[in-house]
Amino acid sequence: MTVKTENQLFSNRVHQVPQSFIREILKVAANPNIVSFAGGLPNPSLFPLNEMEECTLAVFKKRGREVLQYSETEGYYPLREFIAARYQQKFGLNVLPEQILITSGSQQALDLLGKVFLDAGDNVLLERPTYLGALQCFSVFQPRFQEVSLYRDGIDTEEFEEKMFDNCPKLFYCIPNFQNPTGLQYSLEKRKRIAEIALNYPTYIIEDDPYGDISFTGSHLSPIYSHLPEQTILLGSFSKTVAPGLRIGWMVANPEIIKKATIMKQASDLHSNNLSQHTLHEYLTNYNLDDHISKIINAYKFQRNVMMSCLEEYFPEDISYTRPNGGMFTWLSLPESITARKFLEKAMEENVIFVPGDAFYAGQPDTQTLRLNFSNVDEAVMRQALRKLGTVLENTRW
Amino acid sequence: MTVKTENQLFSNRVHQVPQSFIREILKVAANPNIVSFAGGLPNPSLFPLNEMEECTLAVFKKRGREVLQYSETEGYYPLREFIAARYQQKFGLNVLPEQILITSGSQQALDLLGKVFLDAGDNVLLERPTYLGALQCFSVFQPRFQEVSLYRDGIDTEEFEEKMFDNCPKLFYCIPNFQNPTGLQYSLEKRKRIAEIALNYPTYIIEDDPYGDISFTGSHLSPIYSHLPEQTILLGSFSKTVAPGLRIGWMVANPEIIKKATIMKQASDLHSNNLSQHTLHEYLTNYNLDDHISKIINAYKFQRNVMMSCLEEYFPEDISYTRPNGGMFTWLSLPESITARKFLEKAMEENVIFVPGDAFYAGQPDTQTLRLNFSNVDEAVMRQALRKLGTVLENTRW
Repeated sequence: MTVKTENQLFSNRVHQVPQSFIREILKVAANPNIVSFAGGLPNPSLFPLNEMEECTLAVFKKRGREVLQYSETEGYYPLREFIAARYQQKFGLNVLPEQILITSGSQQALDLLGKVFLDAGDNVLLERPTYLGALQCFSVFQPRFQEVSLYRDGIDTEEFEEKMFDNCPKLFYCIPNFQNPTGLQYSLEKRKRIAEIALNYPTYIIEDDPYGDISFTGSHLSPIYSHLPEQTILLGSFSKTVAPGLRIGWMVANPEIIKKATIMKQASDLHSNNLSQHTLHEYLTNYNLDDHISKIINAYKFQRNVMMSCLEEYFPEDISYTRPNGGMFTWLSLPESITARKFLEKAMEENVIFVPGDAFYAGQPDTQTLRLNFSNVDEAVMRQALRKLGTVLENTRW
Repeated sequence: MTVKTENQLFSNRVHQVPQSFIREILKVAANPNIVSFAGGLPNPSLFPLNEMEECTLAVFKKRGREVLQYSETEGYYPLREFIAARYQQKFGLNVLPEQILITSGSQQALDLLGKVFLDAGDNVLLERPTYLGALQCFSVFQPRFQEVSLYRDGIDTEEFEEKMFDNCPKLFYCIPNFQNPTGLQYSLEKRKRIAEIALNYPTYIIEDDPYGDISFTGSHLSPIYSHLPEQTILLGSFSKTVAPGLRIGWMVANPEIIKKATIMKQASDLHSNNLSQHTLHEYLTNYNLDDHISKIINAYKFQRNVMMSCLEEYFPEDISYTRPNGGMFTWLSLPESITARKFLEKAMEENVIFVPGDAFYAGQPDTQTLRLNFSNVDEAVMRQALRKLGTVLENTRW
């Protein structure tokens, strides 16, 4: 018998799951001298710290032993009721609590959906560019990726129809509100058109919506789910509106999918943190979530404005960037004379970091793109750092 | 284009992952009139409730915003240091904090190891019977299962050697301390022999140890890991010693495996609940875990004794059962005249439930076996319910 080397024992998928370059960059960001536009971190100064502390205490008093015990895989029922009621209130959506599965962050929803739907070689259609964590997560299931171009008002729906016809993907994954990494939002027309097209195909749409609440214009477009509920799986999260450290997200889907995803969740981690589910519910009951979100919106909108004015003032004219109406990110395109990786090298000499865009592509990466986060850097620091980046660009191009 | 039906869109694995019968039974257990020996629940009266409340508060005061933020995938470093130091203290094991990955319960460790190691069709060797949650979890990765017989002092090591030779499994999964479902513990000799045999094969041993601390005899046998560290992955959990609702477990492995498992964890849920990791660490720093565990041991040992005396007193003589020296379960074998499922039907008429053993087999199930939990039922209730079960058995057999 030949004894295999350790490397040969790893599964095939191990070699296909991309390691997060962001994670590596974030290790650099631990250095306090570094100004980081790299992370996707909410601004911790906006966490409802006192409220969460108070609610945690209340939960311990009211039901301490219960929250420390094992609990239901589906999640804390009153929290599922709250989420269902909020969809009703915001979009007039009729979602039953039974159609909601609480997950360990919405990242876990992607893992569970991979388990429920993907066999090796299945087709998955993605936006170009897309969320790196989705690329990582789906890669575990060894699918074939296709991409559809993303423009200012959403994906190219003609190309979408072609890709659907040609590949008949099992899943189409999209982030219609203030996308990570681009900050772009789909128009209402495109949402409807996507639903119309998908209706003709045996495809589920995974509509990931962690940023939809953080809208700077006050407008909240109806989710694709509302136009095609039977074929859409809608994901949500409390990470950007309350606090990410609690790892509480959810998925909304038809009951058959929820049933399958629940079995997969049981196999994956039995259930999500019980104390955090109860604490969140206590917080959502005692406080007005939208009042809290409006503080986040005001702060991020201000920071977005600062970033936009800095990009206009300090950056060369041939550098283009998105003007996000919500969320936490903007997306830059550099001219051909410098790649984003090269730009990052120079930026790091100035103690400033960001994420080169190449990590966000399932297919051939666009090496001239990069992502800047505006939620987690204060005005003065942001101005100074973006001025430095502008100077770097001026100096390296000629 | 033919539109596939919804069922056809699910992955192949969906049809292979067994749904937990236990979960279905536990729904019945929500009825307060039911006496349940079915669950695997720690006794909530032993949770360190006041201490956890105090420690949560302390964490909010000391580092509130930090614990609500995203954090490292590997887990909170001081918690990893505590776990490493405890292995040193208990077993003289040299484990670096870098060899420890914090997981969302040790259930998640199984999921991550499936992702890291298993391709469809790979061989996985299991105890007969084994933990249902492991069966569920590994099934997701579509392996081929083999079984090795489990006796009072551990697996049959001759059969183990044969199965290793014949199948060369990638993974051997075992629970050497007070196994779920049988309550059995491997002898030191068998641990050493398993390590000797496995050394000759390209196989990783997953040594799951959620119950090892709950030893009624005061003896703590060295883990298989200590005899074969390069080829063993040791799993631990705070679910049975502190509280399961927090979903905090861990894996110990060589750095290369930890690196791969960390990438898989990032893809699965980014990181485990940050507040709970900090709170646990605060608790472990301020209080003596072993003092707390000794209270659990005293209580469970008493309940084990009550159960053993009831089984002796009320149950027919041809029913055999294990006499666990730790953990939370005993395992019964019925004579051929009645199956465990039939027994359960009759028991439910008396408002008593337990888990038939057939769910715990990867291969042909032994329909005459069943699992009784003794950690979560008080003495008076236990006596009355077991007396009823004894009567049921007497009445249905002739």
